[in-house]
Amino acid sequence: MASTTARPDSAPATALDDRCAHTLRKLAVEQVLAAGSGHYGFPLGAADLVDELFSRYLRFDGTAPQWPNRDRFVLSAGHGSAMLYAVLHLAGYDLTADDLRAFRTLHSRTPGHPERGETDGVEVTTGPLGQGLANAVGLAIAETALRAQLGADVISHRTVVLASDGDLMEGIAYEAAALAAEQRLGSLIVCYDDNDIVIDSAASSVMSSQGVCDAFAALGWRIVEVADGNDRAALREGLDEAFEQGDGRPTLVRVPTVIGLLSPRAGTSASHSGAPTTEEHEEIVRALGLEDVGPFEVPADVADRWQAVRECGAALRRQWEEAQGEAWDRHARELAEKVAEARERILELPAPTAPVATRVSSSRALAALPGLDVGILGGSADLAGATGTVLADGGIFGPDDRRGANIRFGVREHAMGAIANGITAHSVLRGIGSTFLMFATYEANALRMSAIQRLGAIHVFSHDSILVGEDGPTHQPVEVLPFLRAIPDFEVWRPADDLETRVVWAEVLATPDRPAAIVLSRSGVDQIQALRTPDDIAAGAYVAHDADEPEAVVFATGAEVTTAVDAAQRAAHRVRVLSVPNLERFRDMPRDRREELAPSSLPRICVEASHPMSWYGIARDGDAVIGVSGFGASAPAADVAAEHGMTATAVCCAIERAIQ
Amino acid sequence: MASTTARPDSAPATALDDRCAHTLRKLAVEQVLAAGSGHYGFPLGAADLVDELFSRYLRFDGTAPQWPNRDRFVLSAGHGSAMLYAVLHLAGYDLTADDLRAFRTLHSRTPGHPERGETDGVEVTTGPLGQGLANAVGLAIAETALRAQLGADVISHRTVVLASDGDLMEGIAYEAAALAAEQRLGSLIVCYDDNDIVIDSAASSVMSSQGVCDAFAALGWRIVEVADGNDRAALREGLDEAFEQGDGRPTLVRVPTVIGLLSPRAGTSASHSGAPTTEEHEEIVRALGLEDVGPFEVPADVADRWQAVRECGAALRRQWEEAQGEAWDRHARELAEKVAEARERILELPAPTAPVATRVSSSRALAALPGLDVGILGGSADLAGATGTVLADGGIFGPDDRRGANIRFGVREHAMGAIANGITAHSVLRGIGSTFLMFATYEANALRMSAIQRLGAIHVFSHDSILVGEDGPTHQPVEVLPFLRAIPDFEVWRPADDLETRVVWAEVLATPDRPAAIVLSRSGVDQIQALRTPDDIAAGAYVAHDADEPEAVVFATGAEVTTAVDAAQRAAHRVRVLSVPNLERFRDMPRDRREELAPSSLPRICVEASHPMSWYGIARDGDAVIGVSGFGASAPAADVAAEHGMTATAVCCAIERAIQ
Repeated sequence: MASTTARPDSAPATALDDRCAHTLRKLAVEQVLAAGSGHYGFPLGAADLVDELFSRYLRFDGTAPQWPNRDRFVLSAGHGSAMLYAVLHLAGYDLTADDLRAFRTLHSRTPGHPERGETDGVEVTTGPLGQGLANAVGLAIAETALRAQLGADVISHRTVVLASDGDLMEGIAYEAAALAAEQRLGSLIVCYDDNDIVIDSAASSVMSSQGVCDAFAALGWRIVEVADGNDRAALREGLDEAFEQGDGRPTLVRVPTVIGLLSPRAGTSASHSGAPTTEEHEEIVRALGLEDVGPFEVPADVADRWQAVRECGAALRRQWEEAQGEAWDRHARELAEKVAEARERILELPAPTAPVATRVSSSRALAALPGLDVGILGGSADLAGATGTVLADGGIFGPDDRRGANIRFGVREHAMGAIANGITAHSVLRGIGSTFLMFATYEANALRMSAIQRLGAIHVFSHDSILVGEDGPTHQPVEVLPFLRAIPDFEVWRPADDLETRVVWAEVLATPDRPAAIVLSRSGVDQIQALRTPDDIAAGAYVAHDADEPEAVVFATGAEVTTAVDAAQRAAHRVRVLSVPNLERFRDMPRDRREELAPSSLPRICVEASHPMSWYGIARDGDAVIGVSGFGASAPAADVAAEHGMTATAVCCAIERAIQ
Repeated sequence: MASTTARPDSAPATALDDRCAHTLRKLAVEQVLAAGSGHYGFPLGAADLVDELFSRYLRFDGTAPQWPNRDRFVLSAGHGSAMLYAVLHLAGYDLTADDLRAFRTLHSRTPGHPERGETDGVEVTTGPLGQGLANAVGLAIAETALRAQLGADVISHRTVVLASDGDLMEGIAYEAAALAAEQRLGSLIVCYDDNDIVIDSAASSVMSSQGVCDAFAALGWRIVEVADGNDRAALREGLDEAFEQGDGRPTLVRVPTVIGLLSPRAGTSASHSGAPTTEEHEEIVRALGLEDVGPFEVPADVADRWQAVRECGAALRRQWEEAQGEAWDRHARELAEKVAEARERILELPAPTAPVATRVSSSRALAALPGLDVGILGGSADLAGATGTVLADGGIFGPDDRRGANIRFGVREHAMGAIANGITAHSVLRGIGSTFLMFATYEANALRMSAIQRLGAIHVFSHDSILVGEDGPTHQPVEVLPFLRAIPDFEVWRPADDLETRVVWAEVLATPDRPAAIVLSRSGVDQIQALRTPDDIAAGAYVAHDADEPEAVVFATGAEVTTAVDAAQRAAHRVRVLSVPNLERFRDMPRDRREELAPSSLPRICVEASHPMSWYGIARDGDAVIGVSGFGASAPAADVAAEHGMTATAVCCAIERAIQ
C-alpha cells in the first residue's frame, strides 16, 4: 500500500470526471425507472464519491473478481444498489447493460439489494442496515490476519465501506466501530454519506452527524472531513488523506452530499425511495447534460476513461498473480490439508466414560483445532470460558499479536455474528462466534445473513435450554431452536454427547460453505452406548437405544437424549430412542430411511427442552411432544426440569400413555 | 425535584454509612453462598453506590411499591440481583430474610436475575445486557410525557440506572443513549459501575471506559466523574452533582469501583461469578467487620438508619397521595374510558370495498387513536410512513413538544423495542414500536422481554413476507412468524383484511397486559365477504368462505386468505376456508370448537407465506402445507409469489390433490 491511489496518474479533477459521475447517475436512475421501484436519491448524491473511489483509489480487476488481494468495497447502504451496479458495469465486471435493464426482476444479476454470489464485485449481501459495516470489520480482520501470516506482498489491501445515516444509527455499528478501533484496523476506511436525510425526516431530527463523528473519534477512530462530497477537488483532498498510511486507527471519512442531487426532489426525504416520474427523469437527464446518450448507453469519452482504469487494475492483478499467485494457492491447499488432519484428530479423541457437558466436549474438540493454521478465526462475546470456545493456538488476536486466532469480541453479539460473516467472506478463513443460546436473539439478523450468503461462519451456542438453571428465564431459551431451524439453508446441530459433538465439528469443518449453529448443553450428559458411526450421526438421526420389536419411538436431541434413554430403560415396554442431532437432515432423509428409523406404525414421543413447534411435523395426531411452551424459572436445573416435566419419569409416563 | 437528595439531612459520610454498605455486602454474599451460585463480585464493588443511592437520593416507599411518582431504579446489570434484593430488604419492601435465603430457588421472590412482577421494587426484568438501560430511557420518556400532561406536581421523578461495562458494550446501549440525548431526558441518570472487569478479561482489553464516556458525551450526555466509587465522600460529591437540576441532558455518572472488593478475588475476573468458598466467605465477613452478626441478620444501628430512610420515603409518598392521588386516579380512569371509546370508534370505521393493504387498514385504525389521550406513545424506527404507524394527534414527541405521541426512534430497532417496554412498565402508558417484519430480528430479545414481563407493549410489523417483492430476500421474512409464535405469552396477530385489522387493534387495546405483534401486509388484500362478528375474529379463527358439506378445509392467514378464497372459488370441489388471524388462539380453543371449524375427517391445506413450521401441528400426515422454506427473491411481488408457489392456482392444485 505504498501509494495513496490505485492509479499512478494524479491529474486534477476535470470536466470528464464530472461526466463520469453523471454517467453513473444516469445509469442508476435508468435502472430505477425501468424497475418502477428502487432508490435513486442515494446514487445521485453519492455518484461523485463512488466514481472517485473506483476510478482512482480502489485496486480491483473486474475480470478477476476473486483476486484475493483486491480491495474490498462494501456498500453498507445496500438500498443504493443501482449505483453499485452502474459502477461495476463501467468498471469491467461481468454486468451488462441488459443486466442493468433487468434491475429488480426475477433471476436477474441486479437484485434490489446487492447479493453476494449473484453479482461479481458484490463482496457481501447488504440491505439490513449496519450489517455491511460490521461485515467490513470482519473483512479487515481477515486481511490483517492473512497479512501477518503470509506477508504484505501476498495480502495487503484496504476494506472500504460506503455507509449511510441509517447504518450509523444501528447499534451494531457502534459495536463494530468499538471493536475496529480496539483492534486498530488501519486498513479499514468507512465513507459516511452524510446526506442528512432519513426516510421519515431530516436525519438531524433523529441524529447528529457531528455527534456520530465525535462518537467514532471517542471510540478511537481517525476522522477525515470532506468539505463537499459533490465537489471533486474536495473529495480528492479528503480521500488522499484517508488513503494515506495512517497511524493504525480505522478511518471515518465524513462526506456531506445532497440526496437526489440534480433531481427535482433534491435534498428531501421524497427522493429516498420510489421511481422518478417520466418528467422527473427527463429533467434529471437534462441536468446531467446527457440527453444525447441513449438509455443504458455510455458516452465514448467516459468509456475510454474506464478502459484506462480497467487496464490499470488488470495490470496490478497480473503483477500480483505472477509474483504471489503460487504462494497464495499453496496456502489454500495447505489449509485444506490441515483441516482434513484436524478433522481426523477430532474424531480420534478419546471418548469420556463419565457424563460431560457437550460444551466441554466442544471445547476439547476446539483444543485440537490450531486456529489460523486451519483457517478459523474468532471467539466469543465475553463468554469464551463458559461456551468453551477457545482455539488451540491460545493466542489472542489483537494489535500486539496478529497470529492469535482468538478474538475477544466484548459483549457485542450482533457485531460478532456479522464480523464472523465478514471474516468468512474474505477468502479462505472461517469466522467463528459464540455466546449463550439465549443471546442468539441479539444477533438474529446476522445469523440469517450467514445463511442467505451461504457463508460457512460457525456459530457456537451453549447454555441451550431451561436447564441453564439458576440464571433464570432471561437466560433460558425457549423459542430460539424453532427460530434457528426456520432459517433457510442454516444447519442447526444439537449434539447429545461427546462423540456426537466431535462428529458435528468434523462435519462442520467438512462443509465450508454451510453456515452452522452448534447448540451445546451447560450440564453433563451421559455417553450414548449404542454402536454408531460418524456417518450415522452426520446423517441427522440414528438409533441411540433400541429394543427388539419396539413398541414406541422416542425422538430426542441434546441433553434430552440422556433423559429419553433413561426413560426407555425404565419403561415397562420395548422402546427405541432416536438421537436427532440435526432435525432438518432427518426431515430431508429418503422416506424409506425415515421409515426404517421410525416405523410409522409406532407411536412417537418427541422430547426437547424447547418450544414444541419444531416437532409438530414429526408427532402426528395422538403422538406426544414433551417440550417447553412457557418461560423457564430460576432454580437449580433439576428443579426447573421437574417443574417443566422434562424428566425421565415424565417421558416414561408419556411412553406408557402412547402405547396404551 | 427541588432538592438534590430525597432525605432532608445532609450529614457528611460516617462510619455508619460504611457499616450500612458492608451490611449490603454481607447480605448479598450470603445469598450467593446459600444458592451455591450467583454473582457476588458486583455487589461487593457497588455496595457503597447502592447504599448511597437508596438511602439519600432515591424517593420511594417500600410499602407502596406502585406509588406512581416514585423514582425508578433499574439494575441494568441484572446479574447483581443479590445486591438489589439486599437493599430492597433493608429499604422496607416486602422481601424478608427468608426470601433472601431462598435466592435462586424455585418460586422464590429472589430469582437469579431480577424479574418484574416477582419482587416488589423490581421495575423491569433485567439480565440480558443493555435491555435495562434502554428500558430506563422508556421509563424516562413516560415520566417526561406524563409530567407535561399532568403537571410536575403529579409526576416528576428521576429514573436511575446502574449499568455495568457489559451493558455499555452492547449496541442497544448506543441506540438508547443517542435517543435519550436527542430527546433531552434530563431526569435520566445512568450510574456506570466502571470496575474494569468483564468475564473473559480486564474490560480494558475489549473496551475503553474513557472512550465510552467520551462517546456518550459526543452523543449529547452530561458526564459526571466520581473520583472513587468506594469512597463515600467522593460518591456524595459526584451524586450531588448528578442529581442537581441539570441543563436537560441525560447524565452518565462514571463510578470507578473494585469488583469483589474486600474479597480474596478482588479486582479479578474470578470474582465475577460463582459462589465463594466457605473460607473466602469467612474472610469477606471478617473484612467487613460483621463477624458478630448472624446470617441474614442486620446490625441494629444499620436497621435504625434504614428505618429513618423508610419513614422519610413514606412521608413523601403520603404527602403526594393526599395532594395528587385523586388527580392521578382520575387520569387513570379517564384513560380507560377513552380507550373504550377509541375501540368503539375503530370498530365502527367504514369498511372499504376495494382491496387495501392491511398496513393501510392499520394506519386508518391508528388515525382514530389520539395518542397520549389513550395512553399510547411511540412510533417507528424510521418507517412510520411505510408501516402506517402514525398516531392520530400527529405531534412529534420531543424536546419542543412533550404532548406529541409520535416518537421518531431513528433506525434503532433494538432500542425501540426495549424503550416501548420501558414506557409500558412506567404506569398507565403503552409503548408502541414499528418496523418491517424482517427487522423484528434486530429487536428479537426486546420482544421476548415484553412477553416475559407481560408488558402490553405493541409491536407493529408491516411488509410481512416474500410478497415485499423487489426489495428482495434481505427484506423478506421467512423465519420470523415461527419465531414470534414460539415466544411464550406473546400474541401474534396477522389480520387478513380491513375488518380483521380493526378488530385486532380493538382486541389489543382491550388487553393492556398482553404484549402483541401486529403483522401486516405491504400490498392490497381482498375484503372477506363472510358474515362474521368481531368476536369470531378475536377468537383466532373463523370461516371466511364456506360451502355446503365441505370436502376440504384451507387454513390461511393475512394476505394468503385472499389467495385461499380465490382458490376455493376456482376449485372443482366444495371447500371451506378458515382465516386464522391468531394461530395460538386457535390452538387454545376447546377441542369441539376446533372440530366444528375444521372437522378432523376432512383433508387440510395450510397456506402461509412463511416457513411451514408453524403449521405442522395443524397439518397431519397427508395434509398439505404451502409455505416458504427457502429465501425469497428480488422481483415484483407477483413474480416472487409465482416462483414460490404462493398463488391461487397452486393452492387450487393442492386442494384437488388433497381431496383425491
